[in-house]
Amino acid sequence: MELKIALLGFGVVGQGLAEILEEKSKALHSDTGFQAKIVAISDMMKGSLYHPDGLNIVEALRAVKETGRLDAYPEEPGLTRGWDSFKTIQETNADTIVELTFTDVKTGQPAIDHCRAAFKCKKNVVMSNKGPVALAYQELSELARINGVRWGYEGTVMSGTPALRMPITALSGNRINEIKGILNGTTNYMLTRMEEGMSYADALAEAQGLGYAEADPTSDVEGYDAQYKITILSNIVMNVPLEREDVACEGISKLTREDMERAKQEGKRWKLIARCWRDGEEVIAKVGPEAIPLSDPLAGVGGALNAVTYDCDLAGPITLMGAGAGRKETGFSILIDLINIHRNQL
Amino acid sequence: MELKIALLGFGVVGQGLAEILEEKSKALHSDTGFQAKIVAISDMMKGSLYHPDGLNIVEALRAVKETGRLDAYPEEPGLTRGWDSFKTIQETNADTIVELTFTDVKTGQPAIDHCRAAFKCKKNVVMSNKGPVALAYQELSELARINGVRWGYEGTVMSGTPALRMPITALSGNRINEIKGILNGTTNYMLTRMEEGMSYADALAEAQGLGYAEADPTSDVEGYDAQYKITILSNIVMNVPLEREDVACEGISKLTREDMERAKQEGKRWKLIARCWRDGEEVIAKVGPEAIPLSDPLAGVGGALNAVTYDCDLAGPITLMGAGAGRKETGFSILIDLINIHRNQL
Repeated sequence: MELKIALLGFGVVGQGLAEILEEKSKALHSDTGFQAKIVAISDMMKGSLYHPDGLNIVEALRAVKETGRLDAYPEEPGLTRGWDSFKTIQETNADTIVELTFTDVKTGQPAIDHCRAAFKCKKNVVMSNKGPVALAYQELSELARINGVRWGYEGTVMSGTPALRMPITALSGNRINEIKGILNGTTNYMLTRMEEGMSYADALAEAQGLGYAEADPTSDVEGYDAQYKITILSNIVMNVPLEREDVACEGISKLTREDMERAKQEGKRWKLIARCWRDGEEVIAKVGPEAIPLSDPLAGVGGALNAVTYDCDLAGPITLMGAGAGRKETGFSILIDLINIHRNQL
Repeated sequence: MELKIALLGFGVVGQGLAEILEEKSKALHSDTGFQAKIVAISDMMKGSLYHPDGLNIVEALRAVKETGRLDAYPEEPGLTRGWDSFKTIQETNADTIVELTFTDVKTGQPAIDHCRAAFKCKKNVVMSNKGPVALAYQELSELARINGVRWGYEGTVMSGTPALRMPITALSGNRINEIKGILNGTTNYMLTRMEEGMSYADALAEAQGLGYAEADPTSDVEGYDAQYKITILSNIVMNVPLEREDVACEGISKLTREDMERAKQEGKRWKLIARCWRDGEEVIAKVGPEAIPLSDPLAGVGGALNAVTYDCDLAGPITLMGAGAGRKETGFSILIDLINIHRNQL
């Protein structure tokens, strides 16, 4: 059955996803049976479109590229314009909401309310916003469950690198005793450059120039981004509820060139490590810089790459490495959730 | 529904799996809903048992540990002894055959015939033998499909590290343009030691002493083991049929200490790399030693560890690292296939 998708937010990731769905439509169908059409797009700034038979994606992308808004999308019978996000969730014929709004990671809004509204209407939600998963996992996963719909969030940790789906589908049956990872590409890029001799300030400026770090880099360099992600890993992979506030968090801003030099002499390398581990029935988690030995697979993770190691009682330590951000990569993280909703797989 | 399992072969992996199923029974049921009982064990050397209501695993393990045979298993009403592998496949009430016999990797026998017999009786098969998957994938996967049963073979590449299931469940939707990996732990261990200054002969002797290499190390050091595995990856992950004979293959036995030294000076490291890549509609594959730059995630894979990189058009390069052998690890590779058969997931 063809999925009917409503996109909330039509920025970089939303447009990227629309392009992927358009360009890969035939290959996706022949390889996995996947079929989807976008019936609605609602964006606070760019405007909003709904057609129950599906929108013309090429025209929607062109309108936004040429004018910055969806108003230039051609008129046609059955087209409705101007519905806000909640009306789009509640009154379109979409069965699956792709939530890509600008969400405040500290409150998780408006994404949390979008999830609540969608689940109550028995519609699936897929998103890459960390907030709702880190802040409201118990409530929202239960709400999805009782309404018989799916909630996809692969992209919230390591974008399209399957840090959440891989352990659930392929490591199930293990007791995972610890998860540790390099979950923030910006700081890993900076640490790689600092190891090469650059100062913290220069490394930060370079990361900002490359678009890795934002103008206000606090969330990355103080470890808060990694703190959200390890909270999500604990909730989903270890299946133990953890609050973000319970995760001790230290960033990389105090690391000096002398620290880097000393680690090198000891055959070690500084990484911003997020980890959670079992302590009886509980899980404890923390984020902070650690000088790890070069023999650790995480030590070889350079530049903006991310990686995570799952310490399994049967399969041993299993490490997954890949991109942690990016337009296509995050687009894929949404796609893989859609594919697995479509084929009714985890 | 509880799986009813027949074990063909009760050696290291079979006993390991039986122990895991016994010890983890409660946790598996509460975590994933998984339930299984072993109704039959048939081993050419150790004898054979069948009870339609399930065998007492603790007693079976004890009998083999104390006497080397299953004859010491206590008599009880309904117990049948002495059935060979085919009779066990065809006449027991098992719905799932775990194939762990000593199989000749060059012919894939007797495992291929066991698969044929099982699929024709509409029984699932799970195995870690490479032969049948490398040599008869097209025939056997089709036979399983038309009989509506499952064929599990996660353990054929990298044992319990999910080199086959991860890309299928979590990277689907990507075009994977290349797969390259370190798929043989013995040679990777030897190369790690040679890089530290050891001669080829000493590294081989040490690997044999540690149980990594067999008395006749040809299959490992000449690359044949990796050749089978890249053939399997091509067939299953790239979905393009490839014959093992089509894979060019060179081992590590010609590498000298001078080669190691030169690579080090160039900031590189020798690895036995198995790779397959798309060339139009075809896939080309080869196995051979390559001096790879230290920045490649595969360069950081030391000792007996295995790793594989999938080069994805959307998600970018994704690398998976973990054990490639071991009693518990291979036992887990069987378990994860059983769990996913039970929960009707890929």
